[in-house]
Formats: sequence, C-alpha cells, structure tokens
Amino acid sequence: MNRTLKIMPEGLVIKVPFGRKLSDVLEEAGISLSLYCGGRGMCGKCFVEIVRGDLPEPNEEERVLLARRHLPPNHRLACRYRVEGDLVVRVPAGSRLPEMPVLSRGLGRTLVLDPAVRKIRLTRPTTDLTSPRAFLDSIAGRFSGSRLPGSVKTLKELTRIASVDTADTDMTAVLYQNREWISLEPGDTTGRNFGIAVDLGTTTVVVELIDLNGGTIVDSAAGLNAQVKFGADVVSRITAAFADPNKMEELRAAVVGGLNELITGLLQTNQVASETVYEAVVAGNTAMSHLFLGLPVATLAVSPYAALFSVLPALPADETGLAIHPRGRVYLAPNIQSFVGGDIAAGLTAIDLEHQDGNFLFIDLGTNGEIVIKKGRRFTTTSTAAGPAFEGMTISCGMLALPGAVYKARYRQDGLRLETIAGQPAKGVCGTGLIDIIAGALDGGLLSPQGHIRSPSKTIALTNGLALSQKDVREVQLAAAAVKTGIRMLLDENSMTTADLDGIYVAGAFGNYLNIPNSVKLGLLPRFDRSRIHFVGNSSLAGARALLLSRPERARCEILARKVRHVSLAKGADFQELFIEALEFKTWK
Amino acid sequence: MNRTLKIMPEGLVIKVPFGRKLSDVLEEAGISLSLYCGGRGMCGKCFVEIVRGDLPEPNEEERVLLARRHLPPNHRLACRYRVEGDLVVRVPAGSRLPEMPVLSRGLGRTLVLDPAVRKIRLTRPTTDLTSPRAFLDSIAGRFSGSRLPGSVKTLKELTRIASVDTADTDMTAVLYQNREWISLEPGDTTGRNFGIAVDLGTTTVVVELIDLNGGTIVDSAAGLNAQVKFGADVVSRITAAFADPNKMEELRAAVVGGLNELITGLLQTNQVASETVYEAVVAGNTAMSHLFLGLPVATLAVSPYAALFSVLPALPADETGLAIHPRGRVYLAPNIQSFVGGDIAAGLTAIDLEHQDGNFLFIDLGTNGEIVIKKGRRFTTTSTAAGPAFEGMTISCGMLALPGAVYKARYRQDGLRLETIAGQPAKGVCGTGLIDIIAGALDGGLLSPQGHIRSPSKTIALTNGLALSQKDVREVQLAAAAVKTGIRMLLDENSMTTADLDGIYVAGAFGNYLNIPNSVKLGLLPRFDRSRIHFVGNSSLAGARALLLSRPERARCEILARKVRHVSLAKGADFQELFIEALEFKTWK
Repeated sequence: MNRTLKIMPEGLVIKVPFGRKLSDVLEEAGISLSLYCGGRGMCGKCFVEIVRGDLPEPNEEERVLLARRHLPPNHRLACRYRVEGDLVVRVPAGSRLPEMPVLSRGLGRTLVLDPAVRKIRLTRPTTDLTSPRAFLDSIAGRFSGSRLPGSVKTLKELTRIASVDTADTDMTAVLYQNREWISLEPGDTTGRNFGIAVDLGTTTVVVELIDLNGGTIVDSAAGLNAQVKFGADVVSRITAAFADPNKMEELRAAVVGGLNELITGLLQTNQVASETVYEAVVAGNTAMSHLFLGLPVATLAVSPYAALFSVLPALPADETGLAIHPRGRVYLAPNIQSFVGGDIAAGLTAIDLEHQDGNFLFIDLGTNGEIVIKKGRRFTTTSTAAGPAFEGMTISCGMLALPGAVYKARYRQDGLRLETIAGQPAKGVCGTGLIDIIAGALDGGLLSPQGHIRSPSKTIALTNGLALSQKDVREVQLAAAAVKTGIRMLLDENSMTTADLDGIYVAGAFGNYLNIPNSVKLGLLPRFDRSRIHFVGNSSLAGARALLLSRPERARCEILARKVRHVSLAKGADFQELFIEALEFKTWK
Repeated sequence: MNRTLKIMPEGLVIKVPFGRKLSDVLEEAGISLSLYCGGRGMCGKCFVEIVRGDLPEPNEEERVLLARRHLPPNHRLACRYRVEGDLVVRVPAGSRLPEMPVLSRGLGRTLVLDPAVRKIRLTRPTTDLTSPRAFLDSIAGRFSGSRLPGSVKTLKELTRIASVDTADTDMTAVLYQNREWISLEPGDTTGRNFGIAVDLGTTTVVVELIDLNGGTIVDSAAGLNAQVKFGADVVSRITAAFADPNKMEELRAAVVGGLNELITGLLQTNQVASETVYEAVVAGNTAMSHLFLGLPVATLAVSPYAALFSVLPALPADETGLAIHPRGRVYLAPNIQSFVGGDIAAGLTAIDLEHQDGNFLFIDLGTNGEIVIKKGRRFTTTSTAAGPAFEGMTISCGMLALPGAVYKARYRQDGLRLETIAGQPAKGVCGTGLIDIIAGALDGGLLSPQGHIRSPSKTIALTNGLALSQKDVREVQLAAAAVKTGIRMLLDENSMTTADLDGIYVAGAFGNYLNIPNSVKLGLLPRFDRSRIHFVGNSSLAGARALLLSRPERARCEILARKVRHVSLAKGADFQELFIEALEFKTWK
C-alpha cells in the first residue's frame, strides 16, 4: 500500500504509506518547510509544485493563498495534501526554512536553524466568571497540535503558574517538537533558550553550551570520561557492567556525574541558569549510549553484538540525570548497528557525506576505530577495537593533547627532536606525538618494522625522563593494525581499492595535527593524495551540535543511521591473517 | 475545513478535520470497531457502509476482502478511508466489537469489553549473525502503530528481557492503547491481566480489583479517605493545601497511602501480584482529583473556582504512587467543570443517561451534592456543599453504613423504633438512619419544622446512650437545604419544574436504603412518582469500572464531560433567599 514520492530538486525517492500528509512526510525526509501556522493551512508558506501525480481541486483558502503568492496552478499546500498515489513534487526555495551559517569549530557548514525546543510568548488566560474553563484547556487550546503531557511532574510544572499571583500578563510556553509541553514560565523568557551538545567518547568527553536562539557556541569544556577508572576500553566496561548490575549503575552514575561537572562549570562561567537549558544532544558510541542510560549491555557482550536500540525518542532530562531543566529533553544520536554508534551517525551528518558525489572513506580514530565507506549512494561500516593508545591511555607516558604533551617528533642524525604543546616542558606524549615518535624511531633504526626496540634497555628514550617501553610500542602496533585491517576488509567488502576513493575524511582526537607521511609509514592510513585527505576534527561533537540546532539534520541523521549497512570484521574468514600481517609497520602496497 | 460525519444507526453527528482516518474518528466517537489487524487494512473486519459521500475505488486487497464478507459494493474499510467531504456512514453490527454483560453491582449494563491494556504473546527475536538488528527495533517492528517509549524507566523494563538467558521462546508484550509500551515479560503471561477501579470520595473511598480478561469483579474493599483528618469537607482541604504547599503534599500522600492499603490488601487476599495490575481508573470530584495528583488547588480556592484540567492523558503509575505495576497507567475520569468532577462524568456514563430519551434529574448525594439535569440532549450541572453529614461525619453519633449502624427508624406512639445493620447492638447512626430519625422526630412532634428540638434536654434520645444533639440536627438541615436549593435552581435555569421530568436517579452512599417518603418529607427529594425514582448506588465506582473495561465508554465519557454545561449556584441572585427558605423541613410545593 506504499506510494512512491520523489522530492525535487534533491532527487530523493521515498516510500510513503497511503494517505499520509505530505508536510509530515517531507519533514521526516529532512526537508524543512516553513510551517508558520503549524500546518493548519492558514499561512500559505508550504506550497509545493505537484510535478506529477494527483492534483486535487484547491479549496477556497488555498485559491486565495495561491493568488497571493503568484504561484502557478499546479502548486498545493503540503500541509493539506494527502499522498494517495505515486507523486513527484518540487519544493521551492520560498517554501523552505532558510539555511544559515552556524559558527562551528572544525566544520563550517550551513544548516537550517530549527531547534526542537521552541519558546513562545503568551498572554495569561483571563478568568471568565460565567464559564470556569479548566486552566490547561485554555492553554492547550492555543496550540492545535499540542497534547497535554502524560506526566505528573510536567503537569505540576505547567500548572504552577496558575497559582502565581502577579500583574504580569505575559507568560512563555516552552514546547518540544511543536507538540509536547516542557514548561510554562511567568513573564517573557523567550530571550533565554539554551542547549548542550555532548561528544561522549570512551576516553574523552566534550561539552558545548549552545544558544538556541542564535545558533552560536557560547562556550565549551572537555575532560576524561569518568568511567575510565572502570577500564580503558569499551570491552572492559561492557564486561564489568555485564558481570555485575551494581557495577553498571556505578558506570552510569560516573559518566553522568562527570558530564554534570563540565555542564555545571560551563553554566556558572557563562551565568546561564540550568532551568534555561532545555535540551542536550548526546553523541556516543553504542556502548557509551547504553551505559549513559543504564541499559543492559548483555547483547553487546556476546556475538552478534547487537545494540538494544538505534533511534530513540527524546527522553526526559531528569530520568537521565543530566543537570539541565529537569523537564527538558535528552536526545541520543541514533546508533547505526552493533558497536557503530551515534557518534558516527552524527559525524557523517556533520560532514554531510550523503550529499557529496563520489566514493569516500571516513575514519574516526578514537578508542574504537570506526570506518565508513560511501560507494555511490551505499554506505557500509565496521568498527575495530583500536584501544585508547592514540588518546594516551595504556601508554606508560601517555597523556591527552594538553599543554606539555609531546605532539610532534622527527628523527635527526643524533636522535629524536620533540615539540610540546604550548612549548612547555614535556610531561608526556599524546597521540600525534606517539605516531611521530614511532615513525622517527623506524627512520633512525631504533625500532624494527616488527616493533622490536633494538636498544638493550628495550626503551626509546625521549626527554625529561620520559621513554616508550616495548609494551607501549606493542599498544601502538595493535591499534594501528586494527584500523588498517578494518579499512582493508571494508574496501574488500565493497570490491574497491584506495584507487576508487575520491577522498578520505579523518575524524577524531588527533585534530589537524596528525602527520600524514608518518601515518602512511606506519600503515595507519593508506597511501593517498594528500590534498584529498581531510581532517575534520571532532565530527561527533559537530554532529551533536547540528542535531541540537536543526530538526531537518536530525531527520536526515535518523534516516542515514538506518540506511548504513554494518559489516562484522570477525565474520571475515581472513581477518586473523590480515590482522597479523598488519602488525608490521609498513606502508600499504 | 471541518467535514460533517453522521454515524448510523446511532444518528450521531460530529465535525471531522479534513483528511482524518475514519477508523480513528469512529473510535474517538465511542464506536468500537473490530480492528483485529490494528488498522492495517488486512483483516477486513472494519467495513462500514458509505450511505452518502465519496466512494473511492476499492484497491485490490479491499476488493478481495469485500467479496469474502459478501458485502455490497458501497462498503469500505474504515481503517483505509480518509474523511475528505461530508459523509453519512452506517457501521454494521458485524464490524463492531460485541457488547457483553459485565457483572456489576448496582447497575446491570452491558458494554464492549475493550480495555486499554492489551497483552499479546510474542516469539522472542532470534539473533541474526549477519545483521545484528537492534533488539527494540525487532520488537517494535511487530506493531506498526507502536512507538518506542520516551522514558528511560520503560526502556529499562522493555530491554531487561534481552539479558535473560532462557530456553523459553515465548514472551508477552503489554501495550497501552495499542501503541504505548508498558512491559515485555518473559513467557506467556496473557492469562494474568488486572485493573483497579477507584471511587475516590471526599469521605469514603472504594476500590475494586477487576480481571481485565473476563471483565469480572474479583473483589472490592472500602474505607475512609485518609485525608479526613485534614478536614471533613472539600473546602477545608482546599484551604489547607492552598495555605501551605507542604500540607498539600501531606494530603496527597495521605489519600494515596490509604488507597494503597486497600489495594495491597485486595491483592494479597486474592493472590494477585501488583506487577500484573496494569491500570487504575480513578473517579473523584475535582478537588479530590487535584489533590490525588498533588496539583495546586489555588484556582479552586477562589472564584470562579476553575479546575486545572478536565480530560488528562493516562499517567504513569509510579508518578502517582499507586501500588500497581510501576510502568502501568492511572487514568482519571474527566472533570466536567469547577467542582463537578470525574465521579459525576463516570456516573453519568455508567447509567448511560445520554442514550435515554426524555428529561432526567441525577443527584449524587456525597460530601458534595452534585446535581445534573438532562433536558432533551442538553446537560446542565451544579454542585452544592452538602457536607459529609449523610456519610456520618460531623454528626456526634454518626458512622458509615457498617454493622451496628442505625439505618432505619420510624416513630410509633411511644417513641422512635430503630433498626441496625446486621441486627447488632446500635453503635451509631448512618445517613439513611439519620433521615428516618429526623422524619420520625417531626412526626412525633419532638422537632419543629424549623429544626428546634422541643425537649428541655435539647437532644433526641435514641438507644444505648446514643442521641442527636441540636447541632446534629442543624447539620442535616444545612445539608438537605443545599441539595434542595441546588435542584430548584437548576430546574429554574432549565425553565423546568419536576412535572417536566421523566425520572430521577439518586446515586451515592445511601444505596437502596434511602426512605423516599421521609426524604420527600424533609424536602431533600422533590415530590415525585415513586416508581420513577431509581437508586443507582455508587455510580461513580460503576463508571470507573466501565472506563477501565471499555475504551468506547471512556471515549463517550470524555465527550460527555466536555459537553455538560456548568452553572454556578452562587451566581444566582436568589440563592441566599432560596437557601434560607429551604432550611425548613417540609415537602416541596
């Protein structure tokens, strides 16, 4: 009973159940219409051209609105049109919300500013002696699409204002997705409307405070994921939570507590009240998403490593424990499948990979290494257990990319030359430094391609008492081999070689400091035209921000997450062999 | 843009927004269709006759299903039909859920057994190594109309089963309104599905345990509303809660705690686990509904005495504190307006007043006296502050209608002859006894029509040391006058006299024991043909039960609650005069 709808000029083709409203279908497809009147057929802002398909008679209102906008007679209001047959529509620019540049570190994309949270100034209902209409009926009557909340807490929030004795006739409705109630505030508070974007990494977490009115980043903060004390990598945390339900609750409380420290600090510094922060978008890998909610990880602990959820509705903030408005919402970027989670779905959305012609490789180098290949319009993905070596964990002198970290190195005749962040005395080594040191040690003959440290002390001495041990080198070897094997197998799965790629995107903790020749030397990255390797930094965070600011981006991300096909590495018969081969530090053939 | 829909044979005429699905519209109008396939156009059970209006071409499936049911060509599936023009439909009996007699104390109506909670046995999803589909996506995919819950607690509930390592391939989905998830239970638990009906009175509360599978009453229990210690009547409790928010929370906790004692007792006695009780329907007056949820009562404390809500969505049980399945639902019978609450809306639904031809008076004698007049198809209502005298409160020797209560009395030459419940020695006087004693005292000349006790002791001696004081008589005088004034003013408002009435329904604590001639003698009831006065007992409880068992009844009740017009007694200029006149014990003119 589905109909086929083609949307122009995007060329998007989707299946639509019989009788659905065209404006709803377009919104779910990520086309952001101007629905000024909330889809009630009154504002005339959502006209679309019916290129092919049923063209019902316009009604009286529609005729007037058509004339007013000087549109040809084959235009109809999307909010009044039901899809009953196959259809081709063109959505004119004048019927869309405009795109605007959004201040963004790492990625300079434009997007439609259309956050899920909306604040609307209202006049308090006046009491009518002859007919004492119920307070909530008066309020809900102002929004035809809204429904009263099925929650006692939210009902208390909405009705508190009815007890306030004030001369102020203004109040402010806070709505979610134009239909769910978050709050009703005394006075005009429309000027204060904030959100939080979270990159929830296995090792590192980053939090941004966003002004939802202007789409600007107010401030940001980063720190270690407080779960690190329970285990450095994803698998050890899943194992801990799986073995002991109490441990799982500890893991949940740890990550939420850590995020709240960052959030509370940001709010204090910027004098923003937590009650004016109405939504947080959290992008994390599958395991982090589950542990953040305290959901059981049993299915992630055993083959076939299925997630419990992909797309979830937004959840009440107080149930998650995040320190924002308790009746606000927390939206989790949709998991793709298995260990490939919302951070990757968000990242792909941030770089808008879907709308770039050609074949691309996307690599997110974190504690997990996730790899995505876009071949034409098809997406495939896999994840590798790279481990947190590149984030400085599990390395004896490892540290995050903070002042004092060795972040660059090269070999000169008499030894390794090191550079530290901010020129401070060396305190440790971060991911990019680690790769440079290994590459330099290979150049200088301190290390064999098989990873044996040649000196009798079995250490690579650095400076200031710092040194890499044989074990440290093994950690890097394992991490690089995992990523390399993942890329090779995913290329094989797509019957491709690197020659078929139009570009490579590298995301992750390395930022723009990863030395490409050195990465190629270790085999971490394939040999590739350097001008077509793009560093996109923390694309997970950029994606979380896009999902927070723009409902169309969120719709596109959900569609994409369901569309990407997951490939299990362990399934491939030649995985072991390829992995062992990849342990050797050498460039790709 | 609304269309007019006429539903036959009911003759119901309603307005429908353009493009709505006919099956949804019919359901909201209280017509219960057989939607075996959940409205997916597959089972062919919801055919309706299109008597007048658009008759679109049937599609292939519809043609096959039409032939299979041997229906004339003007029948269409309601679940596929969009209302786009004015329409007259006839819903054949074969497309409706059947009505069944429901065991009922007080009222022997039949209704459609169609509870909001539905349990469905499912097979556990098998794991697929090649595509690890998210667990919740597998489950939700079985129910096209369902949506994943926007609640962390419910997500935990649904995913717990994914961790259970069992050979049992059965599990049971518990759905609310066919689309919201309550639970997912291991094994086949469809046989255990219970609900609770609550009459939440100001003075007395009654709780019934209902088997939702068979529609039978398993057991019931009654007790005092634990809020009584904060004040005997509605106004004193509103005042207490209004003055002090902490007191409000105490009031809420008191009533919920009291209900839980009754519920827990019922469950223990009948060996029913609280986790198998998925819904409670609570019918109470407006103030009780607000206090039950802990919502502010400020608007009920001052003119125009507006409620905060009328129709509410069902609420999560754990938020209300009721001791049933924590992720179950609590539905509040819809408030009509001002002090006329869900108990009256439920009561009117229970006796199905709407579908009786003629003019009727409905009186619910509780701590508030609510009065409804149905004149043709129009409903008007008002409430009076009768006070709890008829429930035994505020009377020096008053008690509930329990064994040992004087429940009947008459005057014989030498004094009052008393009868007690169960023939036990007299412990006190209940409501019906009180009316008989006052009437007898008038007959015997012990009391003047103005309510003066003539004996020098200023008491009416009864037995066993029991006696009515002058203050007790005053309480009865005030209560009866409030009810009488309410009836008279509502008749005036409708330009009617008792001669225009086709019948009188009397609901409330009195049950069937109210002595009509005595009630008429005191002026509590108007003079009226005795055969047309119907005692319907606790119609609020019967209504709560009907709303619990039948979604069509609930839909009808919500429509009715919005339709009844409220009249404020205090507004009438002649209220004071009529009230003072009514203080005299005498029959109506």
